[in-house]
Amino acid sequence: MKNFKLTIEYDGTDFHGWQYQPGLPTIQSEIQKILALMTRENIVIHGSGRTDAGVHALAQVAHFHSGTRIGPPQFQVALNQMLPPGIVIRECRHVHPAFHARFDAIRKTYRYHILNRPLATAVGRQYHWHIRQPLDLSAMEKAAGHLLGEHDFKAFEGSGSPRVSTVRRIDKACFSRDGDLIVFEISSNGFLKFMVRNIVGTLVDVGRGKYGPEGVRDILASKDRTKGGATAPAQGLFLMNVEYPEH
Amino acid sequence: MKNFKLTIEYDGTDFHGWQYQPGLPTIQSEIQKILALMTRENIVIHGSGRTDAGVHALAQVAHFHSGTRIGPPQFQVALNQMLPPGIVIRECRHVHPAFHARFDAIRKTYRYHILNRPLATAVGRQYHWHIRQPLDLSAMEKAAGHLLGEHDFKAFEGSGSPRVSTVRRIDKACFSRDGDLIVFEISSNGFLKFMVRNIVGTLVDVGRGKYGPEGVRDILASKDRTKGGATAPAQGLFLMNVEYPEH
Repeated sequence: MKNFKLTIEYDGTDFHGWQYQPGLPTIQSEIQKILALMTRENIVIHGSGRTDAGVHALAQVAHFHSGTRIGPPQFQVALNQMLPPGIVIRECRHVHPAFHARFDAIRKTYRYHILNRPLATAVGRQYHWHIRQPLDLSAMEKAAGHLLGEHDFKAFEGSGSPRVSTVRRIDKACFSRDGDLIVFEISSNGFLKFMVRNIVGTLVDVGRGKYGPEGVRDILASKDRTKGGATAPAQGLFLMNVEYPEH
Repeated sequence: MKNFKLTIEYDGTDFHGWQYQPGLPTIQSEIQKILALMTRENIVIHGSGRTDAGVHALAQVAHFHSGTRIGPPQFQVALNQMLPPGIVIRECRHVHPAFHARFDAIRKTYRYHILNRPLATAVGRQYHWHIRQPLDLSAMEKAAGHLLGEHDFKAFEGSGSPRVSTVRRIDKACFSRDGDLIVFEISSNGFLKFMVRNIVGTLVDVGRGKYGPEGVRDILASKDRTKGGATAPAQGLFLMNVEYPEH
């Protein structure tokens, strides 16, 4: 059995998220379907984590085991020919038999795009959250600073996701602006369910003046999901990369 | 009766082009449907020209006459609330009763996007033509130079579009590159059917080395559509703006 690592780009618009769901188009099931055809094996691919319906990825990582004699370059070419155009295999290579895309991940980076101007766009609208009201970016930057370091992020966790620990370490949480486009980039050793979108919803509340930057510190301390902002829409979110230790 | 000018952005992906077609979603019919609801008049909007199915626009221009008491700001707000998200009214204003979006246009500018690299993208794939083979951009630039000025563009006209004259004047035809993205910008006093896409298909043939830059001059002189390259795909094309004389 060989272990294959896939690096995958996808446009979340047309899919019901990463995770296999019977009868629905998901990234995982589209890829598994083709791998099964190619190898005549019942292949399960393991992603670094789920992404929700509508969330995009530039470099999701997954692995799968197979006894096939097909090599990584053939897998990449054939997958890219047969997959729907919203999924692209950026890389396929052999990895150590013990490599696990989820358990070995040490850091993930997400970006969230906000278009902040009165008028919506038609072109590219599936890649950002459109907010009409001018946001106070400097308040949002200060608020984001309170997230850095190790904290219990229970207040930013979506319901229905019991976990042993909700403590995570955030290494980076910063904003940049390119004209009307505000980009938020966040890196962590792990993200809870809806965590990035709940953080963005809360930072946008700060940007709207609903509460000050220190409000984020209080929400974090409350460990209470009902204190923070609404979950930001999926279509603004991009999984940018997943890091693993150099073996 | 008042005359209203609309400036319209649209993502061509979900529409069967600009022009009204019974039973099919087109930009013109989506807008007319809402104007009819708002004014209870049978409104026809006149665009600066048709765009084909799949072609995008950042600033298409159209006009319509109405006896309504509704003002331009209300039209803009209501249209943007009711239109599908792939169409955005960027501006609505009163214009001179004699203004005609098509007959008064003196210059149009289009852009064409080519992604030139081995790997396709999933995100944003609906906004470019993906070409794997490396293109010789400097040859394409030289070839584009032969298009400048006044010529008979019959060799670049799609069939089924009889016109009095196929002579047009091209003021600008130039390339720029941003990483793997090649952008072609072309301005003219008027474009024939499929003209930009036929020109791009021919310039890409030059970029692939099928013939030299001077081949474009020969194709132009032949006035024969069968000599040039294939029609480039619609999804790479953007109508950027339409110019009118200052009245």
